[in-house]
Amino acid sequence: MIDEDGRVAEDAPMRWNGWGDPAKEKDLPRAVRTLLPLLLGRIRRPEPAVPLADVAIPASALNEEDLAAFRAVVGADHVDVSAESRVRHAGGRSTPDLLRRRMPRQDAPDAIVRAGSHAEVVACLSIASERDLAVIPFGGGTSVVGALDPERGLHRAVVSLDLRRLSGLIALDEISGEAALAAGTTGPDAEALLVARGYELGHYPQSFRYATIGGFAAARSSGQNSAGYGRFDAMVTGIRVATPTGDLELGRSPGSAAGPDLVRVFLGSEGIFGVITEVRVRVHPVPRERVFEAWTFRDFASGVDGLRRVAQRGGGPTVIRLSDEAETAVSLAQVGRIGKLLAKGASVVTVYEGEDIGERRALTAELLAQAGGVSSGQGAAEDWLEGRFDGPYLRDSLLDAGVFCETLETATTWSNLQTLRDAVESALRDGFAAEGSKSYIMCHVSHVYPTGASLYFTVLAGLRTDPLDAWQRVKSGVNDAIISAGGTISHHHAVGRDHAAWLEQEIGETGVRILRAIKRELDPAGILNPGAVIAGQGI
Amino acid sequence: MIDEDGRVAEDAPMRWNGWGDPAKEKDLPRAVRTLLPLLLGRIRRPEPAVPLADVAIPASALNEEDLAAFRAVVGADHVDVSAESRVRHAGGRSTPDLLRRRMPRQDAPDAIVRAGSHAEVVACLSIASERDLAVIPFGGGTSVVGALDPERGLHRAVVSLDLRRLSGLIALDEISGEAALAAGTTGPDAEALLVARGYELGHYPQSFRYATIGGFAAARSSGQNSAGYGRFDAMVTGIRVATPTGDLELGRSPGSAAGPDLVRVFLGSEGIFGVITEVRVRVHPVPRERVFEAWTFRDFASGVDGLRRVAQRGGGPTVIRLSDEAETAVSLAQVGRIGKLLAKGASVVTVYEGEDIGERRALTAELLAQAGGVSSGQGAAEDWLEGRFDGPYLRDSLLDAGVFCETLETATTWSNLQTLRDAVESALRDGFAAEGSKSYIMCHVSHVYPTGASLYFTVLAGLRTDPLDAWQRVKSGVNDAIISAGGTISHHHAVGRDHAAWLEQEIGETGVRILRAIKRELDPAGILNPGAVIAGQGI
Repeated sequence: MIDEDGRVAEDAPMRWNGWGDPAKEKDLPRAVRTLLPLLLGRIRRPEPAVPLADVAIPASALNEEDLAAFRAVVGADHVDVSAESRVRHAGGRSTPDLLRRRMPRQDAPDAIVRAGSHAEVVACLSIASERDLAVIPFGGGTSVVGALDPERGLHRAVVSLDLRRLSGLIALDEISGEAALAAGTTGPDAEALLVARGYELGHYPQSFRYATIGGFAAARSSGQNSAGYGRFDAMVTGIRVATPTGDLELGRSPGSAAGPDLVRVFLGSEGIFGVITEVRVRVHPVPRERVFEAWTFRDFASGVDGLRRVAQRGGGPTVIRLSDEAETAVSLAQVGRIGKLLAKGASVVTVYEGEDIGERRALTAELLAQAGGVSSGQGAAEDWLEGRFDGPYLRDSLLDAGVFCETLETATTWSNLQTLRDAVESALRDGFAAEGSKSYIMCHVSHVYPTGASLYFTVLAGLRTDPLDAWQRVKSGVNDAIISAGGTISHHHAVGRDHAAWLEQEIGETGVRILRAIKRELDPAGILNPGAVIAGQGI
Repeated sequence: MIDEDGRVAEDAPMRWNGWGDPAKEKDLPRAVRTLLPLLLGRIRRPEPAVPLADVAIPASALNEEDLAAFRAVVGADHVDVSAESRVRHAGGRSTPDLLRRRMPRQDAPDAIVRAGSHAEVVACLSIASERDLAVIPFGGGTSVVGALDPERGLHRAVVSLDLRRLSGLIALDEISGEAALAAGTTGPDAEALLVARGYELGHYPQSFRYATIGGFAAARSSGQNSAGYGRFDAMVTGIRVATPTGDLELGRSPGSAAGPDLVRVFLGSEGIFGVITEVRVRVHPVPRERVFEAWTFRDFASGVDGLRRVAQRGGGPTVIRLSDEAETAVSLAQVGRIGKLLAKGASVVTVYEGEDIGERRALTAELLAQAGGVSSGQGAAEDWLEGRFDGPYLRDSLLDAGVFCETLETATTWSNLQTLRDAVESALRDGFAAEGSKSYIMCHVSHVYPTGASLYFTVLAGLRTDPLDAWQRVKSGVNDAIISAGGTISHHHAVGRDHAAWLEQEIGETGVRILRAIKRELDPAGILNPGAVIAGQGI
């Protein structure tokens, strides 16, 4: 069940140098504007962003033969070398991406090729392999880890393979509760198609309005309703993949022991092994009821205790999330309740959808109360739902106001959660201090498992002369801290290029050798998304 | 929660040519003995099995240098070339394995090496790689798919690497609900160690009393309580693996998006990529309560409808299983109620453990009743629990009586379940008919998922002169039928050597290439379990 807005396909193209629908840009709430200098010191407004028409990009490195080969496959209309399209495919939506989009000179892919079928994807990969062209698979364009950088690696040029024409509901098996969707179907389109048949997927990451089903799979996305419906990983029952050297149709049956589960080789592969063209997912009937309840805890630690009890018992809410004291305070400021600032402890939002809501809510209430939680009614939980896809809009307004804003995330076991949170916060605070900036750090837990949970951080800091360089240093320190403190380098943003240098510390040298071996086998020319997931240009 | 018997480590070594503790051999119930000729026609008692001392095996192909190298690593006591140990490690516990164990001439590994630590496993793999020796990792010895055949492939000799000295609880994180167990810990030992601390794993496959934690992981086991606690796949949070070319420690955190989940590369790998030496698993507090309820349905189809409703709603029983009419009838015969034979439709057993049993039972009752089920009380469900690990004992008695008995299993989506069941039953019936045998086929559903379920078949037939050859032909036809009808080649028995020839039809040629690429990278000498999972001797 999603809000009315989300039901409808989002037709407006994403703002070229920011997030989302330009018509929905958000001004900073007055209270936040008042608050920022108090938290971050003097803020200097940055230079205005460069207009799209003034952006300089290199000439396309593709020759006429390259273009003709692609045109023969996808049609002339679907091979695009316009400057606007190239800039629009020049990266994802991390804060560094947006800062780069504000610059007069930018890098960009040499062309956009829009494949319209699995067979066209296969043919495009074949052309690229033969003609020494790197290929960046492109879905909704919402990567925040550099997975869409126009990186040609050791190749002659780089093509953005836009997959959004692969759209639609391919099959719905109502008895089995399983739907096959074309990989380029966006979140809202997928939900609209399913809801028309009485079903839904229930996967709502913050990127929902633009991201695609194939992107969710390739990046191991996790949505806001993960407590109820699971991570996207858990929803996927099968995939179809085009690789440069052969096709795959994986996930023949639920509950198989027919060798290793190869679907899992492609979930999280971010386009380095092949291009996911179809995804089969578990669906459920559209829930008829939704109930909200917010809770307040003395502090983050007691909130974590409450979430742990709920996650380990099971059968609780569909959504459960805990904001720490700093995030709770800013949320209150945003809705104009600045007077109560920093006096409210840590807040928890719960949402219940589906069946047996009364029982599940009573059970959850009992566990949260045992951990010291006090129910604060529906209001705050509804406020969260209202604004849950708006965070990225706010970031654009902050950047305009001269405030650096970025998010990052990790996960660990329950017993290690506080240690990891402290390590990340220290790395952020110390990192920005070393750059001469004050920072304000907020943290929430939004995905819970029986054995552990995610940690999601939002950091604000005054923009300095070169925020891109500064952030690279700070983020590097944070990644080191995550690894030292036993966290994963990503809970749901994936690896991309930004985390690739840390992956070996997480999975070991032998783990990286497994990834390289699969890559060499499926993509011997190394054309697919060079430098993503596996650090280094070649394979 | 397991029965008293299962709480205690099973000290009796497994019967060398049959299942389990020789002291627990079961006579066939009189009703079954009466029934068999009616179902299968005239049965001829076979030749008595050969005593262990009379079995002829080839001389060990290992030389003194080989033995000295292993002795230097594991100690002289743990390198074993005795005929008894070699025969005891000559295979698993499929019916073909047991028929082979009844023969005067048998194949066997050239030695048994019992590694006592991760480091010793690493050193043994290194010796084997250098000395051109195949290695068969050996846990509980309960494979029913030929994964333990003493296959040397293209190598000079073959060593059985017995892992049962790797036993014990390495760590218990009570806050996170996570335990690390040495891979050679048996099911009962693992439960006893955990129960002493107030926790349990809740994984009870029929092999439970002998199989090991590492074996559960390597074969993607699924236990009787899978509706409540999930398949073993779902319980595993991390693994440690020794490969011939490097170590791995995988599963750093719950809910990671740090590239593909490489834990899943090793679950189901059956020792072809490396040797699992430690497994981290999710555990839960020992449940305080257990409630049983049996149900009767008009027929198998309406029972399937009931199970589907329960699986798709979630939050139901810990155990749910449906026996078809044929299996229900024989179960009744076993407990002496032969009078009611074939008049009872299909039976469902449900067991509830843990919290909120009242609510879960009421919810399940509502759904099963909607599908036409009628509650038949506790008795039949308790009978099932009583005898749930005894099936393999009964098989030995049947073989002694001249009755061929074997099981096989698959899974598919709910919408395809009846089609797949019909296809397998026809292939079994027609296959035995072509061999001149009458057969009796029973089927149950014992593992349910939101999108589908398993099908488990037990077949009885009169033994003929060469049952091994006959069964190979029948099973081959069944495997073809499973693939044609869209099923998986295995739901929880795994691939081993017996299913390897069909795996390519399930995962495609490109899928097999992925497995080969990983194998070449980690085990370039190809020493690990040659011919298992990936068909063919070499890599």
